[in-house]
This record gives sequence, C-alpha cells and structure tokens, in this order.
Amino acid sequence: MVRKASIEFRITRSETTTMMRSHYCGQLNESLEGQEVTLCGWVHRRRDHGGVIFLDIRDREGLAQVVFDPDRAETFAAADRVRSEYVVKITGKVRLRPAGAGNANMASGMIEVLGYELEVLNEAETPPFPLNEYSDVGEETRLRYRFIDLRRPEMAEKLRLRSRMTTSIRRYLDENGFLDVETPILTRATPEGARDYLVPSRTHAGSFFALPQSPQLFKQLLMVAGFDRYYQIAKCFRDEDLRADRQPEFTQIDIETSFLDEKDIMGLTEGMIRNLFKEVLDLEFGEFPHMTFEEAMRRYGSDKPDLRNPLELVDVADQLKEVEFKVFSGPANDPKCRIAALRVPGGASMPRKQIDDYTKFVGIYGAKGLAYIKVNERAKGVEGLQSPIVKNIPEANLNVILDRVGAVDGDIVFFGADKAKIVSEALGALRIKLGHDLNLLTCEWAPMWVVDFPMFEENDDGSFTALHHPFTAPKCSPEELEANPASALSRAYDMVLNGTELGGGSIRIHRKEMQQAVFRLLGISEAEQEEKFGFLLDALKYGAPPHGGLAFGLDRLVMLMTGAQSIREVIAFPKTQSAACVMTQAPGLVDAKALRELHIRLREQPKAE
Amino acid sequence: MVRKASIEFRITRSETTTMMRSHYCGQLNESLEGQEVTLCGWVHRRRDHGGVIFLDIRDREGLAQVVFDPDRAETFAAADRVRSEYVVKITGKVRLRPAGAGNANMASGMIEVLGYELEVLNEAETPPFPLNEYSDVGEETRLRYRFIDLRRPEMAEKLRLRSRMTTSIRRYLDENGFLDVETPILTRATPEGARDYLVPSRTHAGSFFALPQSPQLFKQLLMVAGFDRYYQIAKCFRDEDLRADRQPEFTQIDIETSFLDEKDIMGLTEGMIRNLFKEVLDLEFGEFPHMTFEEAMRRYGSDKPDLRNPLELVDVADQLKEVEFKVFSGPANDPKCRIAALRVPGGASMPRKQIDDYTKFVGIYGAKGLAYIKVNERAKGVEGLQSPIVKNIPEANLNVILDRVGAVDGDIVFFGADKAKIVSEALGALRIKLGHDLNLLTCEWAPMWVVDFPMFEENDDGSFTALHHPFTAPKCSPEELEANPASALSRAYDMVLNGTELGGGSIRIHRKEMQQAVFRLLGISEAEQEEKFGFLLDALKYGAPPHGGLAFGLDRLVMLMTGAQSIREVIAFPKTQSAACVMTQAPGLVDAKALRELHIRLREQPKAE
Repeated sequence: MVRKASIEFRITRSETTTMMRSHYCGQLNESLEGQEVTLCGWVHRRRDHGGVIFLDIRDREGLAQVVFDPDRAETFAAADRVRSEYVVKITGKVRLRPAGAGNANMASGMIEVLGYELEVLNEAETPPFPLNEYSDVGEETRLRYRFIDLRRPEMAEKLRLRSRMTTSIRRYLDENGFLDVETPILTRATPEGARDYLVPSRTHAGSFFALPQSPQLFKQLLMVAGFDRYYQIAKCFRDEDLRADRQPEFTQIDIETSFLDEKDIMGLTEGMIRNLFKEVLDLEFGEFPHMTFEEAMRRYGSDKPDLRNPLELVDVADQLKEVEFKVFSGPANDPKCRIAALRVPGGASMPRKQIDDYTKFVGIYGAKGLAYIKVNERAKGVEGLQSPIVKNIPEANLNVILDRVGAVDGDIVFFGADKAKIVSEALGALRIKLGHDLNLLTCEWAPMWVVDFPMFEENDDGSFTALHHPFTAPKCSPEELEANPASALSRAYDMVLNGTELGGGSIRIHRKEMQQAVFRLLGISEAEQEEKFGFLLDALKYGAPPHGGLAFGLDRLVMLMTGAQSIREVIAFPKTQSAACVMTQAPGLVDAKALRELHIRLREQPKAE
Repeated sequence: MVRKASIEFRITRSETTTMMRSHYCGQLNESLEGQEVTLCGWVHRRRDHGGVIFLDIRDREGLAQVVFDPDRAETFAAADRVRSEYVVKITGKVRLRPAGAGNANMASGMIEVLGYELEVLNEAETPPFPLNEYSDVGEETRLRYRFIDLRRPEMAEKLRLRSRMTTSIRRYLDENGFLDVETPILTRATPEGARDYLVPSRTHAGSFFALPQSPQLFKQLLMVAGFDRYYQIAKCFRDEDLRADRQPEFTQIDIETSFLDEKDIMGLTEGMIRNLFKEVLDLEFGEFPHMTFEEAMRRYGSDKPDLRNPLELVDVADQLKEVEFKVFSGPANDPKCRIAALRVPGGASMPRKQIDDYTKFVGIYGAKGLAYIKVNERAKGVEGLQSPIVKNIPEANLNVILDRVGAVDGDIVFFGADKAKIVSEALGALRIKLGHDLNLLTCEWAPMWVVDFPMFEENDDGSFTALHHPFTAPKCSPEELEANPASALSRAYDMVLNGTELGGGSIRIHRKEMQQAVFRLLGISEAEQEEKFGFLLDALKYGAPPHGGLAFGLDRLVMLMTGAQSIREVIAFPKTQSAACVMTQAPGLVDAKALRELHIRLREQPKAE
C-alpha cells in the first residue's frame, strides 16, 4: 500500500564531525562498489554458510548484507559472537554480489559489504518476539514492547509516512499564508459535547482545567484578533469509551480563516488534501464532487457516503401507500418514515443463509427485517420474482419499483421500511457491507464534500441539538432561524473519503445576535451563555470578522493513507481500548501528598495491585 | 527589534473563488496605481478633513488609507457611520497621494484608495482600550481581552515571528533527516523533578495520568525503536509556582538522535539555530565558542554566562590566606569557599549610595557584604586606593591582586568571599547588573556552549542529585563513576545565548548497567527502579543504540528573538502568574457528577463566587 519514499537527505560529514556511520544500510548500491563504508544498526538476521558469516544489518533506511570471512580472524570471531538485535558498527568494503546471488527485494540487494571491522555497541537479549520472521504477536505484547514493535519496517514506515504527511500539510499551509499558532492545553471545559479530561488546579482550590476537545473557540478568537489565516496540528482529548478508531488523545489539523466563504475554504483545503496525496502517494485527484446532506442520505443512507461503492438506495414509498401490507403502508404514509430499495446486481444467486445473515446485520441498526425480491426473470412478471413480499404488492406498483431501481434478471432488491433514520442507517450499512462482501468497489479513492447540513437535529422531546456545534452559521437570518429551526440549513461542510469523514468545518457565526439566537434554540439560558461563553459573546461585539474553518482528523487520514487497520497502528505510543498505556503503566497511583496539594481525595482507596 | 518579514505568499483568485479581498492593506503600493482593489479589515482610525473622510483600514499585513468624498453620496454616508474597529469591506481605486502627503512609515504610505463602495461586515462597540494610539493598559485587562490585545501590530508581529521560526526549524530538521513523531500527553509521571499536572482516570479508579514535563523517555524509546533522528515541537507541563519567564504549559523543540556523539549533535543543533537567525532576523553567527562548566563558573560565576558582558571574576584566595582579616582568611583557607574579585573599568567614580545599593543586591544571593577598592591613583600605592579593606591586606598581596585583575586608575574592584556557591551567584549576578547599569555590553548576540558539567550535585547530607537528569551519560565507566561520583563529569551540553539557557541536552546512557549505577548513586532502590523505570531498563536490554539529543525552550527563544520582556508576550493565550486564564476563566468549577465519574471528591467545598 505505502509507496517507499525516496530518501531526500544525505549524510554529510563536516570536518569536525565524528558521526559513526558513513551510509545508511538502505542507501548502499552498486554505485558504491569498491568504496569503504561504515554502517551502524541492528543485527537483523545472521547466517553461517560455507565457512563465512552473513549478517543482515538493519537501520532506518533498510537492510544491508555484510560478509565476514575467516581471513580476518579477530573480526570473524566478533561476528561469530553477535546475536539478533545486537547493535553494531561495521566497517567494510562494498562489492557486487556473485552473479545469481542478488536479492531484488532489497534496495541494496545487488551488493554486499565485506566486513573488516565489527564493534558491538550494545548487546541484546532475545527479543520477546522475533523481528526477522513473521510471527503473530498479540497486540498487548506489541504495545508493552512498543520500542521493539516499532522496529518492524512496516510499523516504522507508517510513522515515517505520517511525518512526511505533516510536512507536506505544513508546507502547503505556509505557502498559502497560514500562521501556525499554539492554543492552550490547560483550558476551560469545551462545549463539543463529549466528556472532558479534567486537571485539578493546585493554585485554585476546587477548580479544574479541562483538556481541549478542539481549539474551536481559541481559533475563532484568533480570527477576531485579526490573524486572518491560522493553522495548528493540535492535540485534542476526549474521555469517551473507545472504539477501534478512537483514542483518548488524537491529533487534528486545525484551520481557520477570515473573510473567506465556504467555497473558498473548501477550495483551499481540498487543494491541501490533493497536494498531500500527490506528494506522498503520487496520486492525482480531480476536483471533489459536492453533494448535499439530503442527497447523501437519500442515495446512500449516510452523511459520509463511500462513493467507491456503486450501490444506491432508491425511495419507493410513493408506490406503497395503498398496499394492504401494514409493514409497508404504515411507513409509506408516515412523514417521519421512509421506504428504500437497494438493488444488488447479480445478487439473485445469494443463498438463503447469506440473506439471513444480512437480516441479522441490519437488525444491529434497529431494522425489524429485511424484505427482498430476487429477480429471476422479469419477462415472466410476478412468476419470475422470488420473494416473500411480492404477493402483497400490486403488480403495477411492483413494476414501477423494479423499473426505478433498474432491476434486471439476476439481481436482488432489498427493502427497508421504518423510521427514516433506521432505514437510512440499516440500508446504508448494508450497502457498505455488500460492497465489500461482493467486491463491488469501482475505484481505490473517492473523495467528496457533503454540504447543506441541517442546523439542528430535533430530539424526541422537541428540543434541538446542534448537528455540528453551536458556533456554526445558518444559511438564514436570526429571525428566519427562530421561526423555522427544524428546516434551517447550516453553512457546514464535511470532507469525506471512502466513507470516512476526514474533516468537517463551517462558516461560523460572527454576529452576537445570531449567536444568541442559536444559544436560545439550544435551550442555553442567558445566565449560562454569560457564564460559559461570555468571552465569545464579548469577542463578537468588538468587531468579529466573517470567518470559518475546518478540522481534519490526522490519525484517521494517516490510517487511510497507510492502509492501516487501526488508528493504533499510526500512533507511536497509543493507549489500549481501556485508555491505558501498557508499556509505561499509565495511569498510575499517586501519593497522598500530591492529592492533598490538589485539594482532592479519592472516593475509595484503590486496591493494592 | 523585529524585522518586518516580507510576505511570501500572494492572494490567488481562482475562477471559482469568491474571496472577499483582492489585496491585503499592507500590500498596496505605487505599482497598483489606477487599479481597482477590494480590502477587508478593521477601521483603525477615522478622520474628517476638508469635507472628505479618511479611514485607515488595518489587516494582518498593515494599514491602507481610504478616502471617501461626498461625490458618492451613499458610500460617503456609509463611511460617515463607521467607528473604530468596525469590520468593513471596501472597493476603490488606488491613486498616488498628493505630493507631500505621503507617509514614509507606512508600506502603503505613498498611495491611497479612493473608496467607491463600503460594506459594514460587522459593527464594534468602543473597545476597552484604544488600538490607534498608545495607552498604558494593565496586563490583566489586556489578557482578559486578548482578542483585542493581539490586534496591536507589535503583538501580532511576535506571534507571526514565532510561526516563521517554527517553520524554519522544521525545514532545517526535515532536511537533516529528522522525523516528526508525536508522543503522548496523557502519560506517566516523569522524573524531571518538578511537580506534575495530574489527570484522574475514569476507567482506572484511583489512578492518574500525568502531563509530561518533557518527552524525554519517549524520545529515548524512539531511538531504541530505530527511528535514528526524531524531533517534535512538543507541549510540556510543570505545576510550579510561576516566575516571569515560566508558564504552566510551555513548548520545547525536542530532538534526539542515534549513533552521533556530542560534537555531532552540537554541530547539528548549532546549525539549526544559526540557520534560524539567518532566515528570520538576517543575522550571521560564527561558530559558537565552547566553555567548560568549570571555566564558566570561575570566570562568570554562572553556568550560563552572558558573553556580551566583558566583566570577569578573578580568583584571589591565594593572596589572602595569611591576612589577619577573618572575612578573607576564613574563606581563603576553606576548600568549599572562594574569593573572587570583579574589576569594573571606570567604576571609581561610583557614589557611595550606588555601592550601598549593590551591597544590598548581592545580599539577595546570600553575600554578607561587598568589599571594594576604588583605584584612584595606583602610582601612590595604598594611598591612592580608597577602600575599607586595604588596611587589612599586605601591600604585596594587594599589588598581586590588582595586577591580576588588571586594575588601572579610575577602576573599582569588588570582592566576594564566602561559600563558593554564594560568591559565584552573588558576583555573577552583580556582573550582569553592572553590565546593564553601566551599558557595558559589547555586542548584541553572544551564543555559546557550556560543556563538561558535573554528573551530580552533592547535597549537604552527602546524597547526590543529578545535575541534568538521571539518563545523562557520564564520561567514565560505571565502576569509575561509583568510585568517584562527586568529581565525575557528564556528557551534557547547554546552549546559552546572552546569559539565557536556550537549550540543553546530553548523550544518554544506553547500557542497562550504567543506568542502574546512576540510579543507585541517586538512592533509587531496585524496587523503585523497576516500578518507575522498568520499561526503560527493558528497552536498554533489548538493543539500545548509543543516542543523545537536546531540547530547546521555544518560548524563551522567541522571547529573545522578538525582544519581548516576558514569555507571556510570545504566547497567544498565556496564563497569569497564578496559573489562570482571565479570558476564559479557567480553571473553573465542575459538577459533582463529573467528579464522581473520576472517582474523586473535593477536600472541601469551594466557596460560592
């Protein structure tokens, strides 16, 4: 997946330099034939063959084979003593490998080094898992010995790509006039909605700092301060139960601009991502398609559709309003429901067992069943269809539905009929699963923008929750917003790649009256506004410019670009799913004096470990 | 102080762009004469003069003068309504100012814009302090309204320079093969010695994360993992009482390398700083001088000497061993004491009051007095000296002392005689003070290296404290170290600029036996070693390479390079001296449920505010 980067720097030896190595192992090649080199690295593999010793030496840039022959008795004896993962310094002469002995899988595979001198810089006990052959090691062990796990080239390469990615991103943003500004880590509780990590204050008894869930308000304040274009690759924190792609601390590419509208901001940041893929993976993307939230939900059942997947949801409620079958006619006549069909080309051959599995799968999302029609031979009419539901639907309606989804012989069509949210989520997820199971993806990368999000989600009790965050600007005036909050659209935009939300942002509210209108709709009293957001309201009244921005999840972006299976693979020292570090054993116990200084006590004594 | 950076990016308007401005104010100049431009920014100043309205518009890049005349009645009326700090969008035509009306202090001072259209993007109440004239505002007010304070060009410029500095540093390190790797913020208590900020864990009742005082052990583990060259611009935390140049969170340029010795690392990082000054301030430094800790203490009474200052301490105890005056003979015969002289050229004219003030000043550092000799006329012998102490010292010794310090007529020579630590600190501080008071500095910048530090400080009870940190390698073997810890030197090095420690580092211990020897000397039991540093000892036994590095204090570096008086001037949102943010009012109270989830309770209820 990851293309090997060419190394863009060279080792320079100034006169005063006593640098130990002359070359990295991976840099050796035929052009150095006859030259004396000094390598430093780890013994990756050792073989004795025909009276000589072969050591594969590993460093950051790759492997090199060094040969020791008995002619140099002392060096040969030293080479004989080394074991896997010993740290060595070797001087020798580069020579071509004998014809037929080359290794095309190794950058230095056409040459070897005849070893003159070998110095053991450090010994190594046998590592807890081998590095020179594949072995299936549990993640707990790998995390405990992360300093060994990260020696594996495929792990190191991911972090290396991550470093190249941030370099590319920073360069792009610098060139576009963005200033890198650091915002505080010890701050006030942020209103992103997740649980904050709290830090007790020693100097203010009973008070706590919160670690930021994002630098959202600080970046807005930087716009009010006139910085015009800000970025930061910022650590953010959430004390939530962890899923596979979540970590207690994560990294955000945080961007904010003034005097630009959403089109400008999307253009600038799309350029950044396009430039990133070009520089790091040598991939060229065209302009990203834009899709409204409404269309994304309608066609893909998701606000982050994976456009590599050709399957689409098609609404068919209009054809089912009159049927006697309550499972359909109920939702068909309820404006809060939807009925959608999902045609799977060639799916008619699907065995019953597989359909049962998919039925269970959509159950996870609340769907009570998974109706289907196998289209065996449309020319035969209802006779040509195999389905538990066709008898309940008039043939005319059936034909409209099959025409609308484009069903041809050999297809299967799945149906969902329920609350709109359930149908979209269940069929949206089924669509993704089918795409992978049936190998339907049409391309490797499908970036896109989703726009025109609703301002609010309406809760069952009629109250509203901000779909993005409460600082997102609506597309209308404060009066229109308060008159019609449920249907108001926001000026938010999400960048989606392969069904994953890479980043999201919006034009922010820059006028105090609008901010207060949104707070009111969210049920935040004036007193609470003043207490929690007084400084923001102050900032909006002293000349806040129109502004907006975006934040990308860096870890997820690296995960996608390296093809990693988990976010933990692209973080040097990640936490486990229980938010702990098994290597350093954090979190740990602290002594009573420290707690006293922080004006806190434990609710109960921890058990002795 | 700060040179204005030329703006290296331009505003590009792609076809799809609806960017509001065409130019930044500070970018306008004569080359645009006759061209229509659109500006967005803040009304910095407004004047009515001769029937027309002048608005100075301010944005990130500078000011531009816009003229509105009554010919365009509607626009004129709009201009008439705007007030200071209104946010406006103005379209108009660039024209040369009338002869004699140019303003050479403004980049755009030779032109003005004739305003055609004016749109008020946001109104502004009268700011809490004016931005268009000097006003002495208390720091508390400035911090509370930081979003206004940062609009002042001198403030914005400091953060801008900071951003350019990190860009320069990153580029240099990238070009030299360093990988940017993030290390955790939620981690285990670090052994740097200061108090940690603690974060209660929700998932591990009774346990706490610590915020890192530095990524020290993580960067060493990255070397064990084979990353070879690491850097990070890393947030670090210390919960200590704050001095003028300290903040609870601060930023470190953190560097670690493998297979390099101290000379290599000093060369690489010196190159980074030299490159930084060249790129950002256009200043060229030669190679930095190296000085041993012993010499620095002897000549300057400090391990971070300010070499801009020509004054030097000169040891004279050997001349005072036999005198009857106990104040001198006591310290002269005690190996833990020193007697040093400090000659101040031309100081003989110093009035008594000033000498008394300096006597009080050295009292801060524990000196019990400040003996002096005014050298009025050396040719006259003792008669030509004015001093309360000359009668106590034989003339021959006096002459040796005066010759040794190079005293000539018109000088004053100060003396310190006490414990070596007190003399060095007191006369070292007096030296700095005299240098500033008497305007003696010989140059603007004096970078240097201090090397050959002792491994340990010996405490009064005979125990040892690591002078740097316990991972610093000594210059000797474990056996030699344990035999003679008090005199062992370390492989540490500090970079010093103008008497400030910019950064410090060392070659680290890479062998387990050595690390354990140092732990033993520091009185860390085997059990404690295992509990606190088990993962490090593990790492050292599985093939740790020779490695070392350095960390620079970024905030302090920015402070020096911008000429700021306080570290708070170079941080966007700093904390006050009581470790609080007066803008967001952090730290704040949290609700009982949050504390319950974290398994802690307050020691006492906070008072209602």
